[in-house]
Amino acid sequence: MKKFTSVKDVANIYDLVNDALVLKRNPLGYNEIGKNKTLGLIFMNPSLRTRLSTQKAAVNLGMDVMVMNIDKEGWALETRDGVIMNGTTVEHIREAAAVMGQYFDILGLRSFPNLKNREEDYNEDILQKFITYSGLPVISLESGTLHPLQSLTDLITIEELKTVKRPKVVLTWAPHVKALPQAVPNSFAEWMSAAEVDFVITHPEGYELDPAYTNGATIIYNQDEALQHADFIYVKNWSSYHQYGQVLTQDPSWLLTNKRLEITNNARIMHCLPVRRDLELSSEILDGPASLVIHQAANRVWAAQTVLKKMLETNYPFAS
Amino acid sequence: MKKFTSVKDVANIYDLVNDALVLKRNPLGYNEIGKNKTLGLIFMNPSLRTRLSTQKAAVNLGMDVMVMNIDKEGWALETRDGVIMNGTTVEHIREAAAVMGQYFDILGLRSFPNLKNREEDYNEDILQKFITYSGLPVISLESGTLHPLQSLTDLITIEELKTVKRPKVVLTWAPHVKALPQAVPNSFAEWMSAAEVDFVITHPEGYELDPAYTNGATIIYNQDEALQHADFIYVKNWSSYHQYGQVLTQDPSWLLTNKRLEITNNARIMHCLPVRRDLELSSEILDGPASLVIHQAANRVWAAQTVLKKMLETNYPFAS
Amino acid sequence: MKKFTSVKDVANIYDLVNDALVLKRNPLGYNEIGKNKTLGLIFMNPSLRTRLSTQKAAVNLGMDVMVMNIDKEGWALETRDGVIMNGTTVEHIREAAAVMGQYFDILGLRSFPNLKNREEDYNEDILQKFITYSGLPVISLESGTLHPLQSLTDLITIEELKTVKRPKVVLTWAPHVKALPQAVPNSFAEWMSAAEVDFVITHPEGYELDPAYTNGATIIYNQDEALQHADFIYVKNWSSYHQYGQVLTQDPSWLLTNKRLEITNNARIMHCLPVRRDLELSSEILDGPASLVIHQAANRVWAAQTVLKKMLETNYPFAS
Repeated sequence: MKKFTSVKDVANIYDLVNDALVLKRNPLGYNEIGKNKTLGLIFMNPSLRTRLSTQKAAVNLGMDVMVMNIDKEGWALETRDGVIMNGTTVEHIREAAAVMGQYFDILGLRSFPNLKNREEDYNEDILQKFITYSGLPVISLESGTLHPLQSLTDLITIEELKTVKRPKVVLTWAPHVKALPQAVPNSFAEWMSAAEVDFVITHPEGYELDPAYTNGATIIYNQDEALQHADFIYVKNWSSYHQYGQVLTQDPSWLLTNKRLEITNNARIMHCLPVRRDLELSSEILDGPASLVIHQAANRVWAAQTVLKKMLETNYPFAS
Repeated sequence: MKKFTSVKDVANIYDLVNDALVLKRNPLGYNEIGKNKTLGLIFMNPSLRTRLSTQKAAVNLGMDVMVMNIDKEGWALETRDGVIMNGTTVEHIREAAAVMGQYFDILGLRSFPNLKNREEDYNEDILQKFITYSGLPVISLESGTLHPLQSLTDLITIEELKTVKRPKVVLTWAPHVKALPQAVPNSFAEWMSAAEVDFVITHPEGYELDPAYTNGATIIYNQDEALQHADFIYVKNWSSYHQYGQVLTQDPSWLLTNKRLEITNNARIMHCLPVRRDLELSSEILDGPASLVIHQAANRVWAAQTVLKKMLETNYPFAS
Repeated sequence: MKKFTSVKDVANIYDLVNDALVLKRNPLGYNEIGKNKTLGLIFMNPSLRTRLSTQKAAVNLGMDVMVMNIDKEGWALETRDGVIMNGTTVEHIREAAAVMGQYFDILGLRSFPNLKNREEDYNEDILQKFITYSGLPVISLESGTLHPLQSLTDLITIEELKTVKRPKVVLTWAPHVKALPQAVPNSFAEWMSAAEVDFVITHPEGYELDPAYTNGATIIYNQDEALQHADFIYVKNWSSYHQYGQVLTQDPSWLLTNKRLEITNNARIMHCLPVRRDLELSSEILDGPASLVIHQAANRVWAAQTVLKKMLETNYPFAS
């Protein structure tokens, strides 16, 4: 595995899930495989879970980790070609990425969309240029359009806890006051479409995701209808894809409560966090037995560790 | 030891002092005890000594350390329950702490008082919620009201250097231009009241500390009277507890000089640092032989290492 | 070696180059020499290459590394003596440095000039005080006037790639929109003057560097004349030394292109990075075969590792 940026980079998603569950039972079973290898974690936006869980995963494999919040500790990068750099950008991504390629063995990168220019965001310009110019194996720590480590975590969680062979999984939009990226729902849709589940998406009209990711999923605009008999409900806000980056509604009737869950099959509730309580998801659900949000966060370690292990084995086969 | 937030969490303070002095002589004597254990250091406010000394202490025990300046690298946490999170806070402390509980084995937390609402600060809401929701052994790296690692350091320093069995220790207020927390003086008072010393506090009227911490101490408003025959003088500014968070005076006559020390028993001068020269404490004292401030800073490592070692032994007895 | 702040701290520069080339072939050959030793990296200004390469170098030697961006994670330091600290500075450099001296075994420091007061910058007040008050072996990670790790890197690069015994090396000024320090060109001049090369400097009139560093170098104001038969060209902008900190011209005719290189001896092009494309240096050169900028960046690891190894051997001879 040379890159982990989408479900398309994975040969068999259930192989990864199985590897993750083995690591979960025995976190230090491969603690020599990353010895003398350096993981660089570059954040262009804040992170809590992703940073800490990936750092932990790398340490479990014996790797050295260097974390850089480049937006705060570094300087603005130029990403466009053919411009005279006489403005505010201090270094071109061509040099910055190539230099990191000299110091790291694997690069983890978090870049965010600007939510203004859809084509620019969906081109994944920054991520692609880091891949090209660093020459390194690259793990997306969430990009403009996808968050594959989160989705792998979610699949691990569903596999661990499902009570039927083919569970019904519902992705539901939730209200929010800010315009949020589509990366988590795009990514979840992409992975669930590849998984052995019945996958349904529900959201207000106008919140349709990019069909490139939801292809094959059932879309139902009536939330109650969508939730019926659900085994897992993934709650997430996102801004509009078609009216790009806009907040079309904050309709509070989309907020889930325990009462609303009665029509489900004792559904477990998932969210990638951070979650805004009683805006996106009710406290009574978050604090109750149906919530899996902390379980998901814990599984972030095993998702990251699985991907790092695979990358070490593929790219540095004689590492240990 | 499940938490270290106050002298009340310590069974016998002199056991800790003795352990610290053993570690000081042999820093790497237990360098396997923390192997494969992760210390998370979460700062909600800047830190120099606390961060570096605690990091060093953890490394001496073989631990992995993850440092996060959550105020800068993360986002604003909501601490109140029952609010709809439609404002500027991005994540609730319930989730943030619970997630950290999945990644860390011990949590160190620095939180500061806002110095506006005394009840809120003295409730130690943030610290208590991190303890509750993380489920982890927690070390205070200074909280709204106390700074126990500093006080343990101070006790170690006094024990190392005392020349009489029961020294006279004076805590004296000093001038400052800003409103500072009461955490260091509260904590020092709490620990000195439990120690085998004669403890005196001196400050201008209106600067009385919370009696919950000064209980048993002699309070003398005349600084010269208080300093007589002192063996150790602890210099520190704090803002008013009763007129909460206010600077009542900046009276420069409270600034200590060599001349003023002549009435003491060759007193050694202590300060937790950072210190504002010639405002809080005179340069001639700081640069002279009476000053212990760097010695104290050095002892921060052994204080932190002692507490971490105790926590590892108590909570992860089969760790190594 | 107790400090590494200038070529003057080095007994024999080619011994260092040879050591670096040995480490480059065998990065982990001395991975026990720094065991249980702590490198503190203190940045008063942003850094990418210096921080990551020095961290990597230290880890290759088995050291523990603590990074602190003191401008962002700490507070403002007072550097002047004899002032009452009632302003915005929170801690005096005397205490801050002395405290670091208790926690670190080697200190790396990046401080920048303010480019306003030349005497202040060229006194290297901050660097000298960190050396004095920390009591530690100190490595400059770029100071107000010099950047010796960069210059050692550059000498290593020239030694590796030279095709004649005594190459012609040209340092050329390049245009920029901001006022940049003279540290890199001062330092390069200082090291090249000590190296077995023919060294020429070219820049517009008014950009003469401090003669203390350029002593012995040929200065030619006509860039084309200077570049003739060059084997290595070092491109760098700097602000005026004589009209201190001023940008006297942004004349784009100083920008190098492939066409301009035809008069050279197939010169290789060097730059310390970050570089502003098509302002300081043309994209066609940066993306072409003549560019050594990424090679230089890679060599930063071996330069830092060589200096750290020498410091460990000198100051902690029984470390391993």
